Amino acid sequence: MDEIAKTRTHRKAQPGYRWENVELRPYKEDERALFRSITRQVLFSDPSMQGELRYFDIAPGGFSTLERHEHVHAVVILRGHGQCLVGQEVRDVAPHDLVAVPPWTWHQFRAAADAPLGFLCLVNAARDKPQLPTDADLAELKRHPQVAKFLSDASG
Amino acid sequence: MDEIAKTRTHRKAQPGYRWENVELRPYKEDERALFRSITRQVLFSDPSMQGELRYFDIAPGGFSTLERHEHVHAVVILRGHGQCLVGQEVRDVAPHDLVAVPPWTWHQFRAAADAPLGFLCLVNAARDKPQLPTDADLAELKRHPQVAKFLSDASG
Repeated sequence: MDEIAKTRTHRKAQPGYRWENVELRPYKEDERALFRSITRQVLFSDPSMQGELRYFDIAPGGFSTLERHEHVHAVVILRGHGQCLVGQEVRDVAPHDLVAVPPWTWHQFRAAADAPLGFLCLVNAARDKPQLPTDADLAELKRHPQVAKFLSDASG
Repeated sequence: MDEIAKTRTHRKAQPGYRWENVELRPYKEDERALFRSITRQVLFSDPSMQGELRYFDIAPGGFSTLERHEHVHAVVILRGHGQCLVGQEVRDVAPHDLVAVPPWTWHQFRAAADAPLGFLCLVNAARDKPQLPTDADLAELKRHPQVAKFLSDASG
């Protein structure tokens, strides 16, 4: 078995939630910057697999983009703690909690002020582009007091 | 949002690598018993997702079935330690290590004698049935001393 096959087959975990032969990438490749202090590592992405597994790491006080899309997310928290918004629900999350984001559901993950939040996220390899909230969408979301508080924390 | 949607969206981790509203299942549903001390929990399986995420837990000294198939596995170790065979390679595995099992590659996971081995496994939702080794396949595998040792440990 050649060296490439070896490294593709077995990749050791490294300190700090990094992995052998896995590149640390910006969270988003595009110009929108509606997020803070978050990185992305693609752990598994293979033409013979219809799903992709990524690891996202949010530093204390950071957050992912508030967005929605047709494709679903299946999330397993790996480290730290924080909160997530899914639809109109805000929940505390801690290691090994599971979060499912249904189609076209607004969602955002946020690390606590004093802890990182790291999680695995499974998605379909072929997926649609996320949609950002309009002002009207934000106003609608903020009608829910718990959501309004979550969003003000996340953008503050 | 109704109670069902709530429990589907957020499922808290429980002690002992269990999850809220996730059933503990036998490892295999069929009659073959070429494994020992292993359970399965399906964490995410949804018609809108083309991948499935499962958690397998092997008790100390236990092991999964030695098998191969066209579909690939993408594995993230979550707890404990042990070894895995992928093709002709035996590797030690520990938390957060990544293991990719390519198509038609013999593979088996084994917990250490003194520790469990728990791991997430991503697969395509639509997948072929595993193939078991023939005596000739086993003889071929055992030509590699490291593999022979691994297999004798696993069946011993």
